[in-house]
Amino acid sequence: MADIVHPEGRRRVVIEEVTPQVDGGRFPVKRTVGETVVVEADAFADGHDAVRCVLRFRKEDAPGWTEAPMQAVGNDRWRGEFTVTEMGEYRYTVAAWVDRFLTWRGDLERREDPEDIGLALKIGAALVEAAADRAPSQAAALRRCAEAMRDDRDPLHGRRLALDEELGALVARFPDRRFETIFDRELRVTVDRERARFGAWYEMFPRSCVSGGQDHGDFRSCEEQLAYIAGMGFDVLYLPPIHPVGLVNRKGRNNTLTAGPDDPGSPWAVGAAAGGHKAVHPQLGTLEDFRRFMERAREHGLEIALDVAFQCAPDHPYVKAHPRWFRWRPDGSVQYAENPPKKYQDIYPFDFETEDWGGVWEELKDIVRFWLREGVRIFRVDNPHTKPFGLWESLIAEVKRDCPEAIFLSEAFTRPKVMLRLAKLGFTQSYTYFAWRNTRRELEAYFTELSRGACREYFRPNLWPNTPDILTEYLQFGGRPAFMARLVLAATLGASYGIYGPAFELMESAPREPGSEEYLDSEKYEIRRWDLDRPDSLKDFIARVNRVRRENAALQFDHSLRFHAVDNEALICYSKADLALSNIVLVVVNLDPHHVQSGWIELPPELAGKEGERPYQVHDLLSGARYLWQGRRNFVQIDPRAAPAHVFRVRWRVRTERDFDYFM
Amino acid sequence: MADIVHPEGRRRVVIEEVTPQVDGGRFPVKRTVGETVVVEADAFADGHDAVRCVLRFRKEDAPGWTEAPMQAVGNDRWRGEFTVTEMGEYRYTVAAWVDRFLTWRGDLERREDPEDIGLALKIGAALVEAAADRAPSQAAALRRCAEAMRDDRDPLHGRRLALDEELGALVARFPDRRFETIFDRELRVTVDRERARFGAWYEMFPRSCVSGGQDHGDFRSCEEQLAYIAGMGFDVLYLPPIHPVGLVNRKGRNNTLTAGPDDPGSPWAVGAAAGGHKAVHPQLGTLEDFRRFMERAREHGLEIALDVAFQCAPDHPYVKAHPRWFRWRPDGSVQYAENPPKKYQDIYPFDFETEDWGGVWEELKDIVRFWLREGVRIFRVDNPHTKPFGLWESLIAEVKRDCPEAIFLSEAFTRPKVMLRLAKLGFTQSYTYFAWRNTRRELEAYFTELSRGACREYFRPNLWPNTPDILTEYLQFGGRPAFMARLVLAATLGASYGIYGPAFELMESAPREPGSEEYLDSEKYEIRRWDLDRPDSLKDFIARVNRVRRENAALQFDHSLRFHAVDNEALICYSKADLALSNIVLVVVNLDPHHVQSGWIELPPELAGKEGERPYQVHDLLSGARYLWQGRRNFVQIDPRAAPAHVFRVRWRVRTERDFDYFM
Repeated sequence: MADIVHPEGRRRVVIEEVTPQVDGGRFPVKRTVGETVVVEADAFADGHDAVRCVLRFRKEDAPGWTEAPMQAVGNDRWRGEFTVTEMGEYRYTVAAWVDRFLTWRGDLERREDPEDIGLALKIGAALVEAAADRAPSQAAALRRCAEAMRDDRDPLHGRRLALDEELGALVARFPDRRFETIFDRELRVTVDRERARFGAWYEMFPRSCVSGGQDHGDFRSCEEQLAYIAGMGFDVLYLPPIHPVGLVNRKGRNNTLTAGPDDPGSPWAVGAAAGGHKAVHPQLGTLEDFRRFMERAREHGLEIALDVAFQCAPDHPYVKAHPRWFRWRPDGSVQYAENPPKKYQDIYPFDFETEDWGGVWEELKDIVRFWLREGVRIFRVDNPHTKPFGLWESLIAEVKRDCPEAIFLSEAFTRPKVMLRLAKLGFTQSYTYFAWRNTRRELEAYFTELSRGACREYFRPNLWPNTPDILTEYLQFGGRPAFMARLVLAATLGASYGIYGPAFELMESAPREPGSEEYLDSEKYEIRRWDLDRPDSLKDFIARVNRVRRENAALQFDHSLRFHAVDNEALICYSKADLALSNIVLVVVNLDPHHVQSGWIELPPELAGKEGERPYQVHDLLSGARYLWQGRRNFVQIDPRAAPAHVFRVRWRVRTERDFDYFM
Repeated sequence: MADIVHPEGRRRVVIEEVTPQVDGGRFPVKRTVGETVVVEADAFADGHDAVRCVLRFRKEDAPGWTEAPMQAVGNDRWRGEFTVTEMGEYRYTVAAWVDRFLTWRGDLERREDPEDIGLALKIGAALVEAAADRAPSQAAALRRCAEAMRDDRDPLHGRRLALDEELGALVARFPDRRFETIFDRELRVTVDRERARFGAWYEMFPRSCVSGGQDHGDFRSCEEQLAYIAGMGFDVLYLPPIHPVGLVNRKGRNNTLTAGPDDPGSPWAVGAAAGGHKAVHPQLGTLEDFRRFMERAREHGLEIALDVAFQCAPDHPYVKAHPRWFRWRPDGSVQYAENPPKKYQDIYPFDFETEDWGGVWEELKDIVRFWLREGVRIFRVDNPHTKPFGLWESLIAEVKRDCPEAIFLSEAFTRPKVMLRLAKLGFTQSYTYFAWRNTRRELEAYFTELSRGACREYFRPNLWPNTPDILTEYLQFGGRPAFMARLVLAATLGASYGIYGPAFELMESAPREPGSEEYLDSEKYEIRRWDLDRPDSLKDFIARVNRVRRENAALQFDHSLRFHAVDNEALICYSKADLALSNIVLVVVNLDPHHVQSGWIELPPELAGKEGERPYQVHDLLSGARYLWQGRRNFVQIDPRAAPAHVFRVRWRVRTERDFDYFM
């Protein structure tokens, strides 16, 4: 029975349950530059010997590990952290060992019998000498200590020598790690730029940017709209596909089967005689125009995001050039997209089960490479859940290896586990179910899951109250207060959020038919002329909200989100704080767009102080109003016709002279 | 960027979160023969295609996998199960694939347009033909179906043909699994015999079985006590170490430093001139006597468990023969066990950091091998947490590979994670913190963790209300009701439990000193003469409890444990059921040994039926009393001086004629 080989029986420490860890290390966790990774692990040995534990981390391409000490936090759990300072991939793991000197030192502290102490000092002297052998630079000093310990005739004096803090620290610098245990997996962190975590997005159909007598907007006319968008405080301008639109089976207005001669078709029906995914729609301009537009946008502080829609119109050049990439039917036609009995005859999906799947993947990756070369760094990916997981994992890994600033937003409105899987395998951000979470219970449950659940390590939500496909019932029936409330919720629950405009700020709310979430006269199928100067536009309100986001670090992170009790179900209350707790934002939203609602909110002691302490100020950053609050329970009343939300900055330093000016 | 190789892009299914799984498959889960392993997994593909999922399992040495279908249970989760029928190790994993025929069939059901249906039938016919190519035995039948589908001029009739259940089942038998995904780990199950899950243990010092004028009991005198122990209904008789006891530094009565000439010493100070861990204490008898004793015990339905205490008395033969196996101090003495300022001079621990650690391990394994050859199959391991984890993992694996019926009970009264680690790496059962869980909250929290937490898959509790080291305050001060209550709790909360007797049934309750959990005049250091016939002995009560355990399968499993609400904190109420739910036991214990306590207990609907349904009977298997209850809330009142607990069998079939006799 003796043939199960054990390589080194003196390796006595066990390391378990290292966190954060996604699927046993199969996938990386995500951070942005400047964030810290707090790592915990269970580490323990048999018996009662002292254990030491260190965190090991490195930028993927660094020559060696950096180590940071881990502290015992009770119940054999250890905690350490490191800060990620560069984009790219980091690795981390944990090492731990039985520390004989530390064990000996702990025992010595508790020894009482002078004879025992005398003997213990001799043992300890040997341990110090062993440390000297490992510490060339400190060998002489250590040997002197060892000698003093060994020779001391007064055990109590010798013990004082041996327990000296400096000696302890010195020996600790040269531990005996021959039998250390290293956690058996190297875990990974993908480090993105800040925009991956924090940003306000604006989606716009460029063809609707019609200027003067134009029938079809182009990149030049879009340039004129940049000041308007930047003025609202957005960071990312996302354009639906800018490629030639298919003519064959083109859809007409309101998704009708036959297009009129002037109908522009859906931009997601990509490809026509003029080109495919690497071409620009001729009516939008040339590639040169696009480059210039990107440059102009950059001058306005706006970064362009392109749509990646891996599907083809029937007249996409791929269909003739690569018939093997599509599925053919017995009647000699190509299988269009369908979900029986629904048909999407203007869309041919790729056949990812073709023998030439490798060719398909390579070409799709080449599309992304093409736009990377053009300077695009943000991609909003259309329906990634209908393409193989492996494609995304390899595509994103390859892109990010060369271009770590690339950002991929997954538009996977699908089942939860599929949505999460896409995030695990590399998508930087993801659309969410936010649009359909309207009641307090729904919002609290969902955002608690996103901010506290296991997915927080890899799933970054990007919250959209509307999209060209999603006009929710709440917006259809709630009027102006509903738009304002959903904007505040999106912009404060999510460090990343976006709107589809100008439909949003102009409060477009008519559905194609009752019960539908499609817009009436949807821009997906026609060009809309928006009156951006309409006096009821929400553009100023949006600008204010985005300014509050930029000025309050609390709103630029998601993990600190906490919900607070309110005794009225129509009100929701939550707070966020920045990492240093120097910026605390408290949000209260009236979810009922029709009625004034009021209630008592109850804050935890870390926000409100203990009962009876001095009052604090809550400053509504939207209205400018300031309130003095005291204690944990405070009253709020919100009239949705004025503004359906408070976004309070919590200010603590009330009644100290030096802040007097500050509150004026 | 194209050099990240993907082996097969058409493998579209993802398998995640397979359960049960201990530390990502690093350790096996545990079952006993006849139990089932319910396996769940998340399995899904991109898009909307139908997925099929199977569980694969095999006895480790079986030539190939057996497969069992898994059923979708919602949210992309699948469930299947297999029964383990033999001791040893099983493996399991999960496979899943996109099923093109099933996808096609689902689409066909929803198609409406006759032209579409006609085309779909041709596509389906090709899929059926492809199945025929994979199904030599059914090829002809399948081809006929394909032909009929292809040729049908009436699409609606053709659809009926194609949707035929038999055809669906036939094609399903021959799926196209070329691109299936197999979960990337093979998970393991250790299958033990029933005794690993269910058994009542009795610990006894054989040297205290003094018969007539004996000074020191022996295996012969122990034989006389077997009927008494078996009469109480125990299954396992566990003996503290039966080896020669060290003379050097032997402890005297009540753990005094100097032993008198007649003091027998602690049996855990193993080894003397007469031999070490492979020898029998001469005063207990010979190895031959031990064999005979084991045989007699077997005749009484009792299995002998031996103590494995890997440590040495100073005069153990190992100390001279293998000085390298111990740690030497600068004064030329061997380091004894200590926890400063406490010293255990009668015990030399092995130095597991010796250069010859391999030699130590091999010899310790050889000790276990020795007793295996003598027929011992149950080992209670003393303080396994003070020996290297790797030793136990390899020792237990090696033993169980050749002797899967071996059972190892871990006596690791130590920190929670160490305790759990020992269970993970192979210990069959473990002592627990039960002895120190006395209040309802403590008991509910702890046993909820053990029966519902992640550890339930590998940690089998064995509950001991007392041991030679543990006389709890509850027993010291609670009198007879305390002993009865703790017995009922141990015997019903734990399918495995044990007592240290006769101290338990004779309600020995005096501590060595106030505040100590050590027994006064502990048998660890002296021979006790017990009066087994004392009229107040609990032996009959114990016998009744053990009979109830044997007669009620509900009490032979731990995972079904559920606690129920009671409006009095002094009462605890819980139920257990067998796998078939044909045996339901409901326990109510008065935790207050001093006062009558009463309260309303509230049962869940699955126990009590919905409000207003017919009454049911609860039959107290301890007292024989029967009560008719109705609805969810029922009143109980327990006088601890009579019996501090009800152990009810819940009987459902009230008021049906055929059960009339049954209730007489």
